[in-house]
Amino acid sequence: MPTYRLLIEYDGTNFSGWQTQPGRRTVQETMEAALATLLKTRVGIVGSGRTDAGVHARGQVAHFTTEADLDAHRLRRGLGALVGPEVAVLACERAPDGFHARFDARRRTYRYHASTEPRALDRRTRLLLRPDPDFDVMNDAAHGLLGTHHFGAFCRTQSDTQNRVCTVETAIWEPEERPGDWCFRIAADRFLHGMVRAVVGTLLDVGRGKRPADELPGILASQDRRRAGAAAPPHGLVLERVDYEPPIFTSRPR
Amino acid sequence: MPTYRLLIEYDGTNFSGWQTQPGRRTVQETMEAALATLLKTRVGIVGSGRTDAGVHARGQVAHFTTEADLDAHRLRRGLGALVGPEVAVLACERAPDGFHARFDARRRTYRYHASTEPRALDRRTRLLLRPDPDFDVMNDAAHGLLGTHHFGAFCRTQSDTQNRVCTVETAIWEPEERPGDWCFRIAADRFLHGMVRAVVGTLLDVGRGKRPADELPGILASQDRRRAGAAAPPHGLVLERVDYEPPIFTSRPR
Repeated sequence: MPTYRLLIEYDGTNFSGWQTQPGRRTVQETMEAALATLLKTRVGIVGSGRTDAGVHARGQVAHFTTEADLDAHRLRRGLGALVGPEVAVLACERAPDGFHARFDARRRTYRYHASTEPRALDRRTRLLLRPDPDFDVMNDAAHGLLGTHHFGAFCRTQSDTQNRVCTVETAIWEPEERPGDWCFRIAADRFLHGMVRAVVGTLLDVGRGKRPADELPGILASQDRRRAGAAAPPHGLVLERVDYEPPIFTSRPR
Repeated sequence: MPTYRLLIEYDGTNFSGWQTQPGRRTVQETMEAALATLLKTRVGIVGSGRTDAGVHARGQVAHFTTEADLDAHRLRRGLGALVGPEVAVLACERAPDGFHARFDARRRTYRYHASTEPRALDRRTRLLLRPDPDFDVMNDAAHGLLGTHHFGAFCRTQSDTQNRVCTVETAIWEPEERPGDWCFRIAADRFLHGMVRAVVGTLLDVGRGKRPADELPGILASQDRRRAGAAAPPHGLVLERVDYEPPIFTSRPR
């Protein structure tokens, strides 16, 4: 049976996250409903991972398998017309048999957008930082996250994920084009539930002098969620891209 | 009487433009209402120019004069807290006596954001381009707008502005960071009513082969609004900045 994969952007503001939940409006359910309309039969869609309520994506990847032999270009257009303005289907292609959006992902990259200035146009995707944190101090602390660690201290306590070891490749605050705008970029082989928001919340505590910059190794070692900071609000967070080996959607500039 | 000037950002989506109109929600009225709350008296605010319904700003400049001797920092904070999330007060400073946000402005810069790809997160500030226009062809045509011309063909017919001569310094489509995203940047000493949107609409016709690229000089010479293209939708347009001589808000990185 043919497998197709999709590259999806969404504005998470009015969704209860990616994953289908009874009685909630989710991105997965929105995609599956559109696909059911096109295929005249219900097919499950598998995402590269969940995103929480209010979290956005510019590069979520998902796959599904169907008996139908579909034209990828028409499928993209058809889904795009059905999912509504809060979701955009950026690309669609036939995938090799056995491709799995979650199990085959090698790297996920998230961005957390923030600003030291009030913003009107970006208010749905950017956290206002008051008071200003020290970005150099936050980057010193973020450096301690690089490499392979047990991230239990940054994982939501209700999570049933057993393996809490992640390898973080990138973790850095960078200024954006507009003065006052900053972005925290973090890339890892995998992320635990609530991990990026817990990391950002903890770094902001450090950047505001609420906790010492050298506390991060101790927090990691504790494996205790209570030791890390409060989760940063969801609206600043965007799932930027998911990488596979071999690369996917190569005909598309990314 | 002291004069104060303000640097303002706004999401124009749910405003009937800048200028106060009876029974409509406008940015000017929102600012004046906030100022009245702070000053306990009604004071008029003068903007550098009007923006149409649905048009945004990242750098609108406005001034007002009052008998009160105000602390600019507290004024900025106070206004920011009162105007609601769709408006951000980016800066406030005491201006020299006689400063006038509209008459003293030397250059206005607008950006029109568009994309050849569907967008979910930027959908309120970016026009989806279908079919794709040829950006090289549009830039050849835009080049013909540079310099001093009579822009009557690009001015709304109901406008009562007599002087329709503008000097355009910049008019160029440039790719943005994300593949598929484009921005038309236009700077001039002054703009007529509906001018940027009429220019963008006409360039898109040229870029899609609906009218020849060498038609622009003839359209300008005609001074006839019917010769130019339909106005592009307002939501892609942003008043980016207004420049003065000497420069204003110099203590602020811009």
